[in-house]
Amino acid sequence: MANPTAAMLVIGDEILSGRTRDANMHHLAGRLTEAGIDLKEVRIVSDDRDAIIAAVTALSQAYDAVFTSGGIGPTHDDITADCIAAAFGAEIGVREDARQLLQDHYDRQGMEFNEARMRMARIPDGATLIDNPVSAAPGFIMGNVHVMAGVPSVFQAMLASVLPGLTGGEPLTSVSVRIDRGEGDIAGPLAKLAGDHPEVSFGSYPFIRDGLYGANIVIRGAPAANVEAAADALCAIFPEAVR
Amino acid sequence: MANPTAAMLVIGDEILSGRTRDANMHHLAGRLTEAGIDLKEVRIVSDDRDAIIAAVTALSQAYDAVFTSGGIGPTHDDITADCIAAAFGAEIGVREDARQLLQDHYDRQGMEFNEARMRMARIPDGATLIDNPVSAAPGFIMGNVHVMAGVPSVFQAMLASVLPGLTGGEPLTSVSVRIDRGEGDIAGPLAKLAGDHPEVSFGSYPFIRDGLYGANIVIRGAPAANVEAAADALCAIFPEAVR
Repeated sequence: MANPTAAMLVIGDEILSGRTRDANMHHLAGRLTEAGIDLKEVRIVSDDRDAIIAAVTALSQAYDAVFTSGGIGPTHDDITADCIAAAFGAEIGVREDARQLLQDHYDRQGMEFNEARMRMARIPDGATLIDNPVSAAPGFIMGNVHVMAGVPSVFQAMLASVLPGLTGGEPLTSVSVRIDRGEGDIAGPLAKLAGDHPEVSFGSYPFIRDGLYGANIVIRGAPAANVEAAADALCAIFPEAVR
Repeated sequence: MANPTAAMLVIGDEILSGRTRDANMHHLAGRLTEAGIDLKEVRIVSDDRDAIIAAVTALSQAYDAVFTSGGIGPTHDDITADCIAAAFGAEIGVREDARQLLQDHYDRQGMEFNEARMRMARIPDGATLIDNPVSAAPGFIMGNVHVMAGVPSVFQAMLASVLPGLTGGEPLTSVSVRIDRGEGDIAGPLAKLAGDHPEVSFGSYPFIRDGLYGANIVIRGAPAANVEAAADALCAIFPEAVR
């Protein structure tokens, strides 16, 4: 049997103008090859509605799976979700499950969930959300098109979420836990916890806010019960942890 | 008046498989932006005849100029020239001017001009050659499609040759001079020569062959008379120089 085929669509003026060098294509190419999926074509288009719709339609029809990167942030030129909806003839609006994910994230971070950020909860009807363990704003799967972020760490995390579903493996789930301590205080207990829970992975994303150090700890794995158990154990060690 | 538009077509399985990271797109994007040409779309396709013909046809019709990279070397999977000919309905065969460029190059290098290398003299009827000052095998312009090498140093040199023609400037010409000495012996006199001829640029491409050191010095600029004068001056300094 022939390998499944895939294409990538990169959306972003900043790459076509030479300001930014795309980092996601090389990562996707390597991961798909490992997974036995043939990446057959990549297109890079600007933040232009007609160009995005035409490209996603052509690639979606020609290949088994399509991966997009970019254009799902909070600014006015982030039009990817609307273009995907148009390409599939679907309605689009703020979806409650996506809104709740973002609300929880910004509450946890102590940041304002404003109107611009609400744009990131716009999801086409009928799409399945893709988990974003790094910064919450979800990607989504519409038909055979996997709509993912342009920021490399988020793109990579989303790809890790969806790849098992494409190759017959169990989808990964994740839990994010915020701990308001410096990573130096977290590192020791976290290393021990990782040793006790070898079936899940732990990622640490440090931040500084209002002069205080903290980190979001992302726990990923399958099945979900294992991820929950590891998160419970982490919260038991750090009483100030916020899930 | 709107800026002219451009697209790029990258040809190569090695990029889609993740083995190689494309270096030419970022370079082209930056240079076109400087030149006031809008790069609107990039496509990357595999070494597949139908895919190359379909992409070059679509891009050639949609944009003012198209740049391709890759697939013009001596191996059996280098099929770009044949695909471009097919896309334009043109005949293709070994062309005498291209064959002579390669013959001169291999004679100068003391290398065999074998059947595989002869493939690189296959040029579609009606095309204009693009100078390759680094390794001789020419690119070509067919309609609005600029067919260039995938090797970054050659791609960049070919782009430098054709950009002035797209922006109304005078085309650059180049001369290659082989000197069988180590670069350390060449560097001092070359620096002085470059100071005496500020209107042209000098590039040095060192090699080691049969245990002996040498370098190809590429002189580029406009008009051609300036380039010739600089080459004459270089040959006067190094009696063993071969043009």
